[in-house]
Amino acid sequence: MEIVLAKRAGFCFGVKRATQMAFEAADKGGATFTLGPIIHSPQVVQKLEGMGVKVLKTLENLNDGTIIIRSHGVTSEELEEAARKELEIVDATCPFVKKAQEHVKRLSQTGYDVVVVGDADHPEVQGIVSYAEGKVFVVGSWEEAARLPKMKKVGIVAQTTQSFENLKHVVLECLMKGGEIRVFNTICDATAVRQEEAKSLAREVDCMVVIGGYNSANTKRLAEVCTELQPRTHQIETAQELDPAWFVGVNRVGVTAGASTPKWLIDEVIDRIAALDVEKKD
Amino acid sequence: MEIVLAKRAGFCFGVKRATQMAFEAADKGGATFTLGPIIHSPQVVQKLEGMGVKVLKTLENLNDGTIIIRSHGVTSEELEEAARKELEIVDATCPFVKKAQEHVKRLSQTGYDVVVVGDADHPEVQGIVSYAEGKVFVVGSWEEAARLPKMKKVGIVAQTTQSFENLKHVVLECLMKGGEIRVFNTICDATAVRQEEAKSLAREVDCMVVIGGYNSANTKRLAEVCTELQPRTHQIETAQELDPAWFVGVNRVGVTAGASTPKWLIDEVIDRIAALDVEKKD
Repeated sequence: MEIVLAKRAGFCFGVKRATQMAFEAADKGGATFTLGPIIHSPQVVQKLEGMGVKVLKTLENLNDGTIIIRSHGVTSEELEEAARKELEIVDATCPFVKKAQEHVKRLSQTGYDVVVVGDADHPEVQGIVSYAEGKVFVVGSWEEAARLPKMKKVGIVAQTTQSFENLKHVVLECLMKGGEIRVFNTICDATAVRQEEAKSLAREVDCMVVIGGYNSANTKRLAEVCTELQPRTHQIETAQELDPAWFVGVNRVGVTAGASTPKWLIDEVIDRIAALDVEKKD
Repeated sequence: MEIVLAKRAGFCFGVKRATQMAFEAADKGGATFTLGPIIHSPQVVQKLEGMGVKVLKTLENLNDGTIIIRSHGVTSEELEEAARKELEIVDATCPFVKKAQEHVKRLSQTGYDVVVVGDADHPEVQGIVSYAEGKVFVVGSWEEAARLPKMKKVGIVAQTTQSFENLKHVVLECLMKGGEIRVFNTICDATAVRQEEAKSLAREVDCMVVIGGYNSANTKRLAEVCTELQPRTHQIETAQELDPAWFVGVNRVGVTAGASTPKWLIDEVIDRIAALDVEKKD
């Protein structure tokens, strides 16, 4: 059985950077915390916990130590709270997310109503939105965009993992309503490129394995687009979940992974699939 | 034979304003000139000529007198030349065109490359473009937009009579190329509203008469959209061009007129059609 790994499987730039910063902070020792999971990988979070890094939901009861800001970013209020408490801040916010936050801040300071194209429940979006000082709307679909009020000056940014299609529809809807629109295309193409590669691979194999956290939106979406092309697609978090039955009659298996999936998990999965193949032959 | 006049036939806001300003200037007397035709109506231009207002192609040989700036606007260089020569300036530039000029100036002063969506040969566009102090591109179609280079900061405005479809395609093309885009939707909906009304009317009549200058782009387009729905569509400049043969077997005739067509020309056409009808009956 041939195992083909997608070229862009796993960590994107921002996640890689955040993870490195977190492990470096953990290595230094001392009371170290993250506000929310550092990235959407329970296995990475667990490894950091093993090194003494605790995940907090709020800063309410924290008055001392190092706080690591996760790759998705946090709200401006949370960052201010950390500064006010004089915590040591390791800001691992993805630089692309940071840019979106800064654009929103500057847009609303210069008189623009702000539209954030994204999923209102996603922590990245909640962080970005918090930087608006005036009116701000989160729009997840064309239908929602159609319900936007008329605005004289509209500033638009996107959640970094949004599809271009979604951004496009929102921009056109605002354009139709007249006035001035100012758009910062803050979409990071890592997500789109990973999906396109996964789709090509899914077409060429008999089975697809998608590795990544069940709490990771981009992994879930990756599994969905693969399933459309290859119904024998399985999402897993770790190698332990692999089922030998999936590979019966399979000649080529494709492997890809979400943006928060570390290399070691990918390697374990590939090794385990190869081992299953040997067992099959024996 | 019933004659139905479209509600929005004739002068738009900017043309009405420019014509009034020109006639007022002519009434004052003295050496009075326009730079290019004041509006795209040979009949209005002729009337003004009868009052002593001459049309100039350039300011080269003019050193004294009053210069009326036409509704479509002129280039910034021409306006500066008029000021330098201390001519009396009556600026009849349509306020919507003026806004587009001002946006272009401010955009290029603040570091944006500028894209003007419009027809490069049209005097309005040539005027707008002249206000750019940096890079500027005129884009008339999606195909031309696709050939635009990648730009970090793009400012987009439109010729006031452009279709929204065209603006939309250019915006999406620039959005796809990434970076920041800032769009001022400078399209004046008078053109679109006039066209929509003419289309409704063309569907309900047996014959359409479209009145307006042969040098008027919006009149030409108006005749085109009517012809698509009613092949018995005729464009004329004056009542003298009406041909009785057009109305044989016609029960309802629709009349509309371009943005530069004065009311007196429309009235003459309606009177003449009514007279032809009486002759038919006699």
